[in-house]
Amino acid sequence: MEHLQEHEASLEQTQRYCVQRPIYNEELLQGQLHRRERTPQTLRQKIAHSCRCSSKKAKSHLYSCIPILKWLPRYPVKEYLLGDIISGISTGVMQLPQGLAYALLAAVPPVFGLYSSFYPVFLYTFFGTSKHISIGTFAVISMMVGGVAVREVPDEMIPVGYNSTNVTDSLDFDARDTKRVQVAVTLAFLSGIIQLCLGLLRFGFVAIYLTEPLVRGFTTAAAVHVFTSQLKYLLGIKTSRYSGPLSVVYSIAAVLSKITTTNIAALIVGLTCIVLLLIGKEINLRFKKKLPVPIPMEIIVVIIGTGVSAGMNLSESYRVDVVGNIPQGLRAPAVPDIQLIPAIFVDAIAIAIVGFSMAVSMAKIFALKHGYAIDGNQELIALGICNFVGSFFQSFSITCSMSRSLVQESTGGKTQIAGALSSIMVLLVIVAIGYLFEPLPQTVLAAIVMVNLKGMFKQFGDIAHFWRTSKIELAIWVVAFVASLFLGLDYGLLTAVAFAMITVIYRTQSPQYRILGQIPDTDIYCDVEEYEEVKEYPGIKIFQANASLYFANSESYTSALKKKTGVDPCAVLAARRKAQKRHGREIKKANANDVEASVKHEIANDELPVNGRFAEASVQDMSPDEQERFVEPKPNIHSLILDFTPVNFVDSVGAKTLKSIIKEYKEVGVRVCIASCSAPVMNELTRLSFFDNTVTREWLFHSIHDAVLASLVQLGLASGKVSQEPGVVGEDVLFPQDSPATRDRKLSASEITA
Amino acid sequence: MEHLQEHEASLEQTQRYCVQRPIYNEELLQGQLHRRERTPQTLRQKIAHSCRCSSKKAKSHLYSCIPILKWLPRYPVKEYLLGDIISGISTGVMQLPQGLAYALLAAVPPVFGLYSSFYPVFLYTFFGTSKHISIGTFAVISMMVGGVAVREVPDEMIPVGYNSTNVTDSLDFDARDTKRVQVAVTLAFLSGIIQLCLGLLRFGFVAIYLTEPLVRGFTTAAAVHVFTSQLKYLLGIKTSRYSGPLSVVYSIAAVLSKITTTNIAALIVGLTCIVLLLIGKEINLRFKKKLPVPIPMEIIVVIIGTGVSAGMNLSESYRVDVVGNIPQGLRAPAVPDIQLIPAIFVDAIAIAIVGFSMAVSMAKIFALKHGYAIDGNQELIALGICNFVGSFFQSFSITCSMSRSLVQESTGGKTQIAGALSSIMVLLVIVAIGYLFEPLPQTVLAAIVMVNLKGMFKQFGDIAHFWRTSKIELAIWVVAFVASLFLGLDYGLLTAVAFAMITVIYRTQSPQYRILGQIPDTDIYCDVEEYEEVKEYPGIKIFQANASLYFANSESYTSALKKKTGVDPCAVLAARRKAQKRHGREIKKANANDVEASVKHEIANDELPVNGRFAEASVQDMSPDEQERFVEPKPNIHSLILDFTPVNFVDSVGAKTLKSIIKEYKEVGVRVCIASCSAPVMNELTRLSFFDNTVTREWLFHSIHDAVLASLVQLGLASGKVSQEPGVVGEDVLFPQDSPATRDRKLSASEITA
Repeated sequence: MEHLQEHEASLEQTQRYCVQRPIYNEELLQGQLHRRERTPQTLRQKIAHSCRCSSKKAKSHLYSCIPILKWLPRYPVKEYLLGDIISGISTGVMQLPQGLAYALLAAVPPVFGLYSSFYPVFLYTFFGTSKHISIGTFAVISMMVGGVAVREVPDEMIPVGYNSTNVTDSLDFDARDTKRVQVAVTLAFLSGIIQLCLGLLRFGFVAIYLTEPLVRGFTTAAAVHVFTSQLKYLLGIKTSRYSGPLSVVYSIAAVLSKITTTNIAALIVGLTCIVLLLIGKEINLRFKKKLPVPIPMEIIVVIIGTGVSAGMNLSESYRVDVVGNIPQGLRAPAVPDIQLIPAIFVDAIAIAIVGFSMAVSMAKIFALKHGYAIDGNQELIALGICNFVGSFFQSFSITCSMSRSLVQESTGGKTQIAGALSSIMVLLVIVAIGYLFEPLPQTVLAAIVMVNLKGMFKQFGDIAHFWRTSKIELAIWVVAFVASLFLGLDYGLLTAVAFAMITVIYRTQSPQYRILGQIPDTDIYCDVEEYEEVKEYPGIKIFQANASLYFANSESYTSALKKKTGVDPCAVLAARRKAQKRHGREIKKANANDVEASVKHEIANDELPVNGRFAEASVQDMSPDEQERFVEPKPNIHSLILDFTPVNFVDSVGAKTLKSIIKEYKEVGVRVCIASCSAPVMNELTRLSFFDNTVTREWLFHSIHDAVLASLVQLGLASGKVSQEPGVVGEDVLFPQDSPATRDRKLSASEITA
Repeated sequence: MEHLQEHEASLEQTQRYCVQRPIYNEELLQGQLHRRERTPQTLRQKIAHSCRCSSKKAKSHLYSCIPILKWLPRYPVKEYLLGDIISGISTGVMQLPQGLAYALLAAVPPVFGLYSSFYPVFLYTFFGTSKHISIGTFAVISMMVGGVAVREVPDEMIPVGYNSTNVTDSLDFDARDTKRVQVAVTLAFLSGIIQLCLGLLRFGFVAIYLTEPLVRGFTTAAAVHVFTSQLKYLLGIKTSRYSGPLSVVYSIAAVLSKITTTNIAALIVGLTCIVLLLIGKEINLRFKKKLPVPIPMEIIVVIIGTGVSAGMNLSESYRVDVVGNIPQGLRAPAVPDIQLIPAIFVDAIAIAIVGFSMAVSMAKIFALKHGYAIDGNQELIALGICNFVGSFFQSFSITCSMSRSLVQESTGGKTQIAGALSSIMVLLVIVAIGYLFEPLPQTVLAAIVMVNLKGMFKQFGDIAHFWRTSKIELAIWVVAFVASLFLGLDYGLLTAVAFAMITVIYRTQSPQYRILGQIPDTDIYCDVEEYEEVKEYPGIKIFQANASLYFANSESYTSALKKKTGVDPCAVLAARRKAQKRHGREIKKANANDVEASVKHEIANDELPVNGRFAEASVQDMSPDEQERFVEPKPNIHSLILDFTPVNFVDSVGAKTLKSIIKEYKEVGVRVCIASCSAPVMNELTRLSFFDNTVTREWLFHSIHDAVLASLVQLGLASGKVSQEPGVVGEDVLFPQDSPATRDRKLSASEITA
């Protein structure tokens, strides 16, 4: 522990970084180290290990599958129950209006929103691992469900300009709604199965592809979709509902074309509700600390709306659309319509993944805040069970709602008990007083939906934020937004995920190429263009690309190397060949010439032109006189160090590129070293049979500084020039003019060209 | 140049790596360096620069567009002409039979293969930059053209079991062939335009996505396609031709179902040709050096085949299918059928890209061998012009043929003149003696095609090769092969490219996570599990992931960090909270207890469990007695160093993850440092507002060793423990038990949990 002691000695005065060790290339380093012998587990051992069975293991397995078994027996009633009850009531009071409102989005009658706010919420209590998220209807998912329902059962099947004030009066509408419910329910069934399968297969990681900018762009687009779909309810206009690509444009156009038929009474009620809800939100935000429980403005608005509507008979006097028939009690379970599956499979995948990623991202935020762990795969299984089982009881796809979850957590909810209580509140409404909400105007629900979009619309601010922080993430946001807005949420999401992956390729494919130089008196090498202090050793070029070397960037790596170092072996070889040919002709022409002179000439040719490009152009454009000038000695490089610090993997194309670089530069007398090649990359290179008798591990150095020192040593031993001219910088030629090694190299190069 | 001198001093005896410098964190380093002032070019300057016009620039532009202007005036007639003539004749002799044979593949009458072997080949002389590749018909491209032609004009339109020996006798067949020619010609037209556009837009780089394993898997599948499509000609069976997914299966099934109708005469002629061709290939290979020119076995076989067929009247006596009508002379130019474009657009893109990548990869091999440069974009333009202009003269899509290119180069071809001569040979045949080939049996052509596939079938050996070198590249090969075989060449290629990109994501997404340790007395840090010599400093963990940190891997980064280091802050906090609560209860229960004792207890709680997992499980399962034991002091870490050497980029998700890691570990009293963060990553972190008053640049160190030394210094100053126990390894606790700093930290942590 030479270091530690050294370091302690100087501890009080200065903290210095002191290292003294041999110059390590990989050959030397590997020779000094002893590889730890690892007996890898055989497949049989692995299987035996994973199949080993014990009661403890079974118990922990059971606990992880049904988490309630673990936490309920230990439930501290005194401490938690009050908080859970308050939180449960507050959340339940939100579940009600949101369930009714989001059912409109899902294109199903409102009562199905209530079913969706009961069954899955109750089930989650048993299987969920997050203590604070509120499962249930959610705008984005409901919108996606609605899009599919409308696509499969379009409005065109019934007359559009229908004039009745009460929609459900018509048998046609009933038939349509029944079919749409079937679609929505089958979608929940299928997305539940998909989530369940993904969870059982431990595929929870798929959500990682939904990066934050993508999700935010996507949800912003969803908010626009939701907003446009609610406009007609707010204005009391009757238009058909659109789905698929450009549905937003069609929806807005349809609303605008019928803007003259606006129902003033509905609009007034709707706008009043919006104002009330916004005031309520503002108060809840401002007096967050003073209020014991946030004001449940949504349920207040619903109650007032229902009262006003019933009192003034809005439905019949003013032809305001109301919620209409809410059947009392629950429905008997029914099997979803399996035949619909092929048509909605892709949508189900999209809903399953979006639903999961919403829930798990929210769950993670709370878990982090309250210091407990959630299990992504178990969450997936829980959501899957909620959707799957719920679908038998006519509920549509659900996930976690952000607004409700925030309320559940902030009102003191401690465990899943709060969620269970909120679902029981919804149940009570369904079985007891649901019919009371029949006169509720739809415009009130539209107002609730729209005000809940406020947070999502705020995400437009992301554009400015990502513009400042990262253009690539801005691009992901914009692509996710635009694609989801115009292609529809399903294809939009797919496009956005594909685009996000392409950005990763792009990042690895177009790296920054830099020439490094030393900060004097240190082992630190930086970009020469960045700092004034950075100096290059004469004759040594250090090249770095901040990416791995593989098929998509190996070509640009080579060309950047030639451009940045200013040495293109092809051009140099071409120039040299030209000169040799001329030399041959000269010998033929004038045999009387001195032999010594021609040898001198050949040596001169060995000097490389600084700029390969220039050399190439000049050789072919110049007269012989000019060529004479061209072959004059010029400052040049003898060593090229490729910094492999940022290289994390190499494929066969990369290895071949590397090998041809080494070969090409060797032909023109430049020694190529590789510095800081990590162990995994070295293993990959070995497997790709990169090392042979021409390229050995001696060309690999532990660090750039090792490689530089080794180059200097090699040079010093060969010509002794370093010691004669210490400290020379920049313009000096340190190229060994006629050492035996280079002489050999030169001969072999000319042999190749012969 | 402190180094250089130091180094020179010890040059003769030992080459040592000696560094003495301050311990650098980024704050300190940036303070000592002066950023070079760079005035970036304004947009106006850039535009002005690129628009600047000069006669020299115009000339070099003209030269790069029409390369023949550059090399022809300087053509050394005496040196090159003989080689070019021999090579041109040898290649032309191959163009003939291959043109006829590949026309069968492209599902057009043989004469169109001859047209395709003339016009584009001649045009390439003017625009191409490669001196050695032989442009013309090529099996894979012809197969792709044939697939599209058959799809657009299927056999079902005419009776299949047609019995005439001479196919072209029928008007139905004529109509079908005319239509197929239209499709093939329009395909050439469109792919030419696409190549031209890509070339003009400098999009030559698209070919980089076709990595070697992909191309090899794809061409192997193409070889299987070609082989199955030729079986019926070899056997003299009449079946329809299939295209699209599973066409290979259908083709083989169709041939097998009619195997009893095999024409024995055709089979004998075909097999004889195959044997002759294989012998010829073998001789050419064995006596490569002794033969001045390879034996043109293909043309010999064609001539013998034609002679035998004419002499024995195979066509009528034995009902062997022959080439049939070869119209003499050239056709007037005609505009391709524009209306077909929408139906074949995707295929044209695939053909354009495959054609280009074949040509450019071959051209690069020769350019490297002979030391000249090719211009990828100009190659794209040249191929585009060849296809585009050729399509007006009824030629189908072409590219470079591997077998012909090898002959052209090995027989001494020096420039594009050889290609021009070979095309003139084809022209002579078309205008003068084409009709002579009319009795040539199709089985001979099938034999030629099949034997030419030999090289591609050898690529099955790749499977073993890639199995040894890289499993990922094996996967790319297999996916490319299987997809191209069963989905058809176009969709197969698309699938393979998508898969190749996903492998890149996969590589960056599932990195290897390692704990590093020091090789004593050096600044070298290696995987602790790999070498025996590697030692860890007690209390310091160095964690490395060999990938960048971004959305797809940040989650696994966090979990791997917790697992590998054995410290999970969440678990520790949960344990601590539990203990504090218990402590609170104890205080309530027994107020008589000494205050000092409880303080001592709290300190004890500050000790972290080694294994977070164990801690979590135990906290919830244990009785209070057991918990007493759990909170006993245990060996632990005080510093966590994240090695950022392999990190090439960070996105917002990565930055947030990093920040939350730092925050979480800080709460449990572990100091997190980042080592060797590269300049671009640091800039990204700055833009992502990663640095604030809690996380500063002082946490970033130039190297792992800097970070380790700094940690030791910090520790030493705080407690003086290091100097008391020098050289301790492994089990010792170096955690500062009660320094003011940690005391504060602990308090704030408990505040948060309160």
